[in-house]
Amino acid sequence: MTLAVLGPKGTFSCELAEKIRNENEEIILFPTIRDVFTAVLEKNIRGIVPVENSEAGGVGETLDGLLQTECRITAEYYMPIRHFFVSRYSPDEISVIYTHPQSHEQCSIYLNGMKRASLIHTSSNAQSAKEASFISGSAAVTTESAAKLYDLPILQKDIQNSLNNTTRFLEISAGALDPDDPEKCSVVIIPRENRPGLLYGILGIFAQRGINLTRIESRPSKEGIGRYVFFIDFETDPGWQETITELKKITGVKELGCYRKKDYV
Amino acid sequence: MTLAVLGPKGTFSCELAEKIRNENEEIILFPTIRDVFTAVLEKNIRGIVPVENSEAGGVGETLDGLLQTECRITAEYYMPIRHFFVSRYSPDEISVIYTHPQSHEQCSIYLNGMKRASLIHTSSNAQSAKEASFISGSAAVTTESAAKLYDLPILQKDIQNSLNNTTRFLEISAGALDPDDPEKCSVVIIPRENRPGLLYGILGIFAQRGINLTRIESRPSKEGIGRYVFFIDFETDPGWQETITELKKITGVKELGCYRKKDYV
Repeated sequence: MTLAVLGPKGTFSCELAEKIRNENEEIILFPTIRDVFTAVLEKNIRGIVPVENSEAGGVGETLDGLLQTECRITAEYYMPIRHFFVSRYSPDEISVIYTHPQSHEQCSIYLNGMKRASLIHTSSNAQSAKEASFISGSAAVTTESAAKLYDLPILQKDIQNSLNNTTRFLEISAGALDPDDPEKCSVVIIPRENRPGLLYGILGIFAQRGINLTRIESRPSKEGIGRYVFFIDFETDPGWQETITELKKITGVKELGCYRKKDYV
Repeated sequence: MTLAVLGPKGTFSCELAEKIRNENEEIILFPTIRDVFTAVLEKNIRGIVPVENSEAGGVGETLDGLLQTECRITAEYYMPIRHFFVSRYSPDEISVIYTHPQSHEQCSIYLNGMKRASLIHTSSNAQSAKEASFISGSAAVTTESAAKLYDLPILQKDIQNSLNNTTRFLEISAGALDPDDPEKCSVVIIPRENRPGLLYGILGIFAQRGINLTRIESRPSKEGIGRYVFFIDFETDPGWQETITELKKITGVKELGCYRKKDYV
């Protein structure tokens, strides 16, 4: 078995994959989230992708992958996100800090206090550590595993703004069947028309049956500004199957999968 | 008068600022969107910030600035977004392409075809051009003005996935009064509790009065995963003042400003 994950080694996605992989399951790393979706479909394997963070919000590339490919959601994972400030230099020697833009946003309070150093954005938390491993006078915001990988001393741990910082990940699979006893489902609503009250009508279908929505997120439909699709996650309260039937009568619906709720990993 | 804008010179924000500035109005550039919000409040000037793109979605830093500061929205602007592929080298000599992550997303189809070159993410479209101006064998995805600024030949224009690619910008001001005849208003709903059907009830207040929502976007409340605030833009159809009064009876509401609709610039 193989698990497709966003690389390089040392990212939060990799840390999660190491925790949840089955014995003998091989982890294969890909440079982009879109490549993970492609590998899952072409090789018929499972993949792990981040979908939302409690500070930075939704991950657009994952939402677009769910909208545009036939991958199905088969599980979810919640992972506490801990950022580390690492460097081979003392604080007053540091003139440049490498950070992924999302990590910058999630550690903005700590980083705003580092006025003397300039910030350079990178493509991943692992890349930040890699830069800091060979650039003179540099530091990085990174993961614990990347700090170990590049042998970088930790100057400060837990520099994230919120100690509740959490990322929700999805397991995606090709051609998977839903479990018999799902606890949550995800759909994306693709409006056929742009009429007032449509979203109200959609939410009414859930509200009338007392179905609890756990998340709603709009994304551009990419058909022009002001046109949106809506990602909705809901719990499988009694009557949930009917909601999908009813939704399809008034709007376009793509079912993304039903799955069991997960504890923190 | 002064106009605060996200820099460096050559970004889309700068291109817009050049088009809309009043005669004698000086443009001051800031390194982050948060710095634009701070300058607007501290210097009592107007600022320009991007809020959503038709391909990449909402700009989190702007939404967070609206939620967390006392800046008010006083106007909106829609700007067609055109990306340019620039380089001093011929296509088969190019081994590295500099691109801002959002520009990468918006030009993914064109860039996916450039398999031989590796992609490096930068902090702005202007930075991408700057890198390509002195790194051997490099190219950049950038703006027309940055291509001119760094004297980089345009190899291909309009490489964005969609020819409808548009960014909506907001003008923000400190302590501004709403106009007498606004056409649109923006609010952020800050739920005091996390109860089923709350969002349905909120949308009902608009729907019952036939008020047209032009946008709804959820953002993490930053109080833990699964807790959200909702940014809502609506048109000032008759009865719109009552909707704000009614909303405040059932949920937390922060009014972000009312303003005139704008044409494309």
